[in-house]
Amino acid sequence: MTSNELLKTYEESTQQLAGHGPRNVAVLKNAFESIDGNMSSDKYGSGAVIEDFQGKMAEFLGKEAAVFFPSGTMAQQIALRIWCDQKGIKKVAYHPLSHLEIHEEDGLKELHGIQTILLADRGRVIELEDVTSMDDDIACLLLELPQREIGGQLPSFETLEAISAHCRQKGIKLHLDGARILECLPYYGKSIKEVCALFDSVYLSMYKGIGGIAGAILAGDEDFMAQSKIWKKRHGGDLISLYPYILSAETYFAQRKNRMEEYYLNAIELAAHFNSCEGISTIPAIPVTNMFHVHFEEAPDRLAPILIQAQQIMDIGITGYLKAGETGCWFEVSVGDQYNRIPKGKVAVTFEWLAEKLKTLK
Amino acid sequence: MTSNELLKTYEESTQQLAGHGPRNVAVLKNAFESIDGNMSSDKYGSGAVIEDFQGKMAEFLGKEAAVFFPSGTMAQQIALRIWCDQKGIKKVAYHPLSHLEIHEEDGLKELHGIQTILLADRGRVIELEDVTSMDDDIACLLLELPQREIGGQLPSFETLEAISAHCRQKGIKLHLDGARILECLPYYGKSIKEVCALFDSVYLSMYKGIGGIAGAILAGDEDFMAQSKIWKKRHGGDLISLYPYILSAETYFAQRKNRMEEYYLNAIELAAHFNSCEGISTIPAIPVTNMFHVHFEEAPDRLAPILIQAQQIMDIGITGYLKAGETGCWFEVSVGDQYNRIPKGKVAVTFEWLAEKLKTLK
Repeated sequence: MTSNELLKTYEESTQQLAGHGPRNVAVLKNAFESIDGNMSSDKYGSGAVIEDFQGKMAEFLGKEAAVFFPSGTMAQQIALRIWCDQKGIKKVAYHPLSHLEIHEEDGLKELHGIQTILLADRGRVIELEDVTSMDDDIACLLLELPQREIGGQLPSFETLEAISAHCRQKGIKLHLDGARILECLPYYGKSIKEVCALFDSVYLSMYKGIGGIAGAILAGDEDFMAQSKIWKKRHGGDLISLYPYILSAETYFAQRKNRMEEYYLNAIELAAHFNSCEGISTIPAIPVTNMFHVHFEEAPDRLAPILIQAQQIMDIGITGYLKAGETGCWFEVSVGDQYNRIPKGKVAVTFEWLAEKLKTLK
Repeated sequence: MTSNELLKTYEESTQQLAGHGPRNVAVLKNAFESIDGNMSSDKYGSGAVIEDFQGKMAEFLGKEAAVFFPSGTMAQQIALRIWCDQKGIKKVAYHPLSHLEIHEEDGLKELHGIQTILLADRGRVIELEDVTSMDDDIACLLLELPQREIGGQLPSFETLEAISAHCRQKGIKLHLDGARILECLPYYGKSIKEVCALFDSVYLSMYKGIGGIAGAILAGDEDFMAQSKIWKKRHGGDLISLYPYILSAETYFAQRKNRMEEYYLNAIELAAHFNSCEGISTIPAIPVTNMFHVHFEEAPDRLAPILIQAQQIMDIGITGYLKAGETGCWFEVSVGDQYNRIPKGKVAVTFEWLAEKLKTLK
């Protein structure tokens, strides 16, 4: 009952702290408003709509070629499969909380028969030593930047360079799970091409920071991408028409690709607001992208009524859910377009009110 | 050069004999015109948009449950995989020209390790005897209705009933590749529920006769459909948002589901026009659905100039391509909304002109 009320008051608030706004049909309608109805659909991976966008993204990422996929799940399994086949080793390594390990019903294992080595502890990112001390012979190492399930943490750029150099020397392919890679650039102070140059293959989501409807880009060399198209067909991802996703991705990519620094700086500001309340802490303490996790010492059932009240009184959406943690509870924040629409004074008052209310729980 | 000209004049003609019209962005814009922008997206298979449509389609097909997939390729591989796992036999049977055998880059074999038995000769449909005389132990038999690659031919309904009874008796699951199943109903004189009742699982395409943008429905019993959702995630088909396909499918399903008899009768009329020309014959001679293949005795390079001229003079699109056959060449026709928009007299004159011109090639 309380959890429904939390979601309800979150959705009913005029503005939310995080995100770009509601995931509704207007996202599609707005993207298509200025597009001519006579534009031809793509057709099974061919046609100007898909080929032009793929070319643009390959150029943007600094790779020879790129292919648009309906999902990152599909794109990444395929990338790992190609590298495994090329090396003749059906084994890859990634973080224990990788999307492939915890959110894909073991597709990589069930469909591709690929074994996985889990590197590093769940609570931290993969460091150079995790890679160099690996005994197993693997075809590919996948790095997720940022590591979403631990609040969007990042290794240093020097670590990335060292891991990349090590993998090249050992003949291990390096794949970037870059669902949110644009969101990392302001912290690294690097261009997208400089980051992608460290990797043999790169995946980028069209609906995280970019805020499209769905879809993903996979980029790499010509031969790799040609193979990926065959696997895309095998997976059932070579749809007759992907343009609803492609054209909306193109619209929102143009609108948001240069706003990542704004989201990042706002995330730092917003995290500081949360950390100013007793009983709340964020991971990371200072965000390195637009995202972080908010942890509460209190249990969900004691906390939710306060958050519900805050959302109702302030008309600001803080969260629609609370997940039980080992102690207390938590939720995820990804800052987007909405934060700047809320007057700074109103945000400050909201957190002052919240801090006072949390004290009453002691 | 000539083949480009054929496509160009086809696309430039105001009306085409076959199809619903151009596959362009207007198909999406028209479908979304009346949809409220505040409608929430589906989310990874949940939400009213997807659940309501799935419920409606399950009810329509007379099955316990239905799941919306981005593609038929994905839906059908998954259906066969589930039946194979259930029976513990990784072998299925289908027609030599099944979509799974010739258009999916062997996804069924490469991703699922399923062996295939090819039934019947390429030029005819699967009959009861092909099934009863099969030596191999299989988990599932797939029947494609109509058999698209041979012009949309159909077995008799009595044959379907006999094959279904045989499979049930032998414990073989029967799957319907019903990409175009609605298009078969007028000829069979049966309801969709009567046809689907013969099958354990049913696939229906959203962009053939229905004319949506992309997507597919898979239907069957509750347990089967629950398993299909797990495999949908593994395949990378459980997108955060499928609503661009679902809502357009819903729109065009409502518009066209009751027009299949009109398309079928028009296909019979149009095929007769083709057959009235010397050197042209259709397969089937009398269509049993809205589709057929048009075969020419002449080679493409001798024929194309005449078709180009016809398309230019009459402003009617006949075909945009010609495929070389063992002798002569051919193309596929699927009659849709467009045929009725062309005055009957104009169609007749076009074919009279074509018949005269073909005589000059002798």
